[in-house]
Amino acid sequence: MTAGAPGLPPSVVVREVGPRDGLQSEQPVAAAERAALIDRLFAAGLRRVEAVSFVSPRAVPAMADPVSVLEAIHVPAGGSVAALVPNERGAGMALEAGVDELTVTIAASPGYNEANVAMSIDQSLAAIGAICRMAATAGVPVDAVVSCAFGSPYEGDIPAGVVGALVGRLRQLGASAVTLADTTGMATPRVLDEVLAATGDDVGLHCHETRGTGLLNVYAAMERGVARVDTSIGGLGGSPFAAGAAGNVGTEDLVALLDDLGIETGVSLERLLEASAMARDLVGHELPSRVARVGPRLALAPVPKEPGG
Amino acid sequence: MTAGAPGLPPSVVVREVGPRDGLQSEQPVAAAERAALIDRLFAAGLRRVEAVSFVSPRAVPAMADPVSVLEAIHVPAGGSVAALVPNERGAGMALEAGVDELTVTIAASPGYNEANVAMSIDQSLAAIGAICRMAATAGVPVDAVVSCAFGSPYEGDIPAGVVGALVGRLRQLGASAVTLADTTGMATPRVLDEVLAATGDDVGLHCHETRGTGLLNVYAAMERGVARVDTSIGGLGGSPFAAGAAGNVGTEDLVALLDDLGIETGVSLERLLEASAMARDLVGHELPSRVARVGPRLALAPVPKEPGG
Repeated sequence: MTAGAPGLPPSVVVREVGPRDGLQSEQPVAAAERAALIDRLFAAGLRRVEAVSFVSPRAVPAMADPVSVLEAIHVPAGGSVAALVPNERGAGMALEAGVDELTVTIAASPGYNEANVAMSIDQSLAAIGAICRMAATAGVPVDAVVSCAFGSPYEGDIPAGVVGALVGRLRQLGASAVTLADTTGMATPRVLDEVLAATGDDVGLHCHETRGTGLLNVYAAMERGVARVDTSIGGLGGSPFAAGAAGNVGTEDLVALLDDLGIETGVSLERLLEASAMARDLVGHELPSRVARVGPRLALAPVPKEPGG
Repeated sequence: MTAGAPGLPPSVVVREVGPRDGLQSEQPVAAAERAALIDRLFAAGLRRVEAVSFVSPRAVPAMADPVSVLEAIHVPAGGSVAALVPNERGAGMALEAGVDELTVTIAASPGYNEANVAMSIDQSLAAIGAICRMAATAGVPVDAVVSCAFGSPYEGDIPAGVVGALVGRLRQLGASAVTLADTTGMATPRVLDEVLAATGDDVGLHCHETRGTGLLNVYAAMERGVARVDTSIGGLGGSPFAAGAAGNVGTEDLVALLDDLGIETGVSLERLLEASAMARDLVGHELPSRVARVGPRLALAPVPKEPGG
């Protein structure tokens, strides 16, 4: 299908976060292998990849050696490599290493922010402001990811006005883009309506499958004008089989859907599935992504016999 | 939320198929325990339950003793108990046992129909016609489930006109209702558009999570006017962990979503989760349903610490 879909954006920017958000919770994968995966993701046509984070390797062993990863990758024309940075020190190292974009995070939930980075929201805003000033000097854009934008396991519902005000403050501080993250799978089309009314639709969306609603929420957000989506190869990111955590929306799953709807991504699903197979081999277990396991809808695999349905 | 959602039906009839479609592919569960699960599902507020099938116990050991199940259950006022019947013989036994509804199946895919029941579509139509006549004499409605209505692993795309013609023929033969089944997870909102244009929206929908699009397709179908949906407690039905097969949409997952959207189902999610816990104990393994594992969105479980997203 190539005709596009009524009421949906003609194209969507898919930002791949698997090498960072996906792999950070896996057993460590060597820098050279992470770089090879990133190359494979670029080769599939993805142009924005969150590749590394400059966090403490003691805190997150799987994210060690970001510079080695960055030195080893081959960035195609038009490609952009992002690094997650938790503070000014990390930002300095990432800018030194020549990344194309910084990712910073802050939660709309005070409880989650405190639990995750041991800072108040105001302290996180101050740190992000400092990072944005460093990035501006270097001419590098900053994407601010707002965790728990659709609810929090600590406070429950987060008022949409709170999310809207936080997004406004991040833009004032110099964030070039803002991404709303549904960290624990609490978004629904109703909550999306409320939050997007407060933030506008010029935001990215980062959904998790904690309650099986990740892809549904991406679809509903596209109906509401959102055209930037974070996904993770294979749906990596947190264990999908443990209560309380689940993976990101799988890049394969989203691209398969968008291909069918005629929404342009620039990504080859066939080559993406090669990257997915590599990711599976690197982590050493099956991936949560369904499309990674069974292929796109016209993959004509026979199915088991069963009566009914 | 109780306000309803613009563009969506005010209420949805959820037909529970777990005791039949879910349990048929599990290790056999005793009839008394299946009956206890059905009672629990009725107690949660579900009013339509596909409880048993009258198939050969040699072919499907998990569906043995349907009469024992039917004799043991307690059907509330307004409750309706359906039995899947593969042929006139099964229909006779089901009607004799006093079920409220018969379910019959036929595939829109000749290859799938042949592989599944070793009959051509015409042969299946003839059998369904005979069953409908028996049911009409007994005053019992028949729901005809059309497998592979959104594509087939054998032929690939099934033209929407073929599905529409088959649905028309089933209605002519006396089917009181028709349900479109996405047996192998090939539906998308685009395919839904095409098929519903050919069948009308007075159909039930039965989706699978083979490609992680089950709940998304139910949502998209509701946007297109569909208001009858099959689900399975816990998302049981086929192994979600084996390539080529995956479970039904979980009843918990759909009810949690509809509750949030203010769409009436008459089902108590809290009591449904009790039924879900029983289903998990009966099958002896974790259920595919995410909501079964982590609870509804405002269940305030703390989440693991992780940097970003």
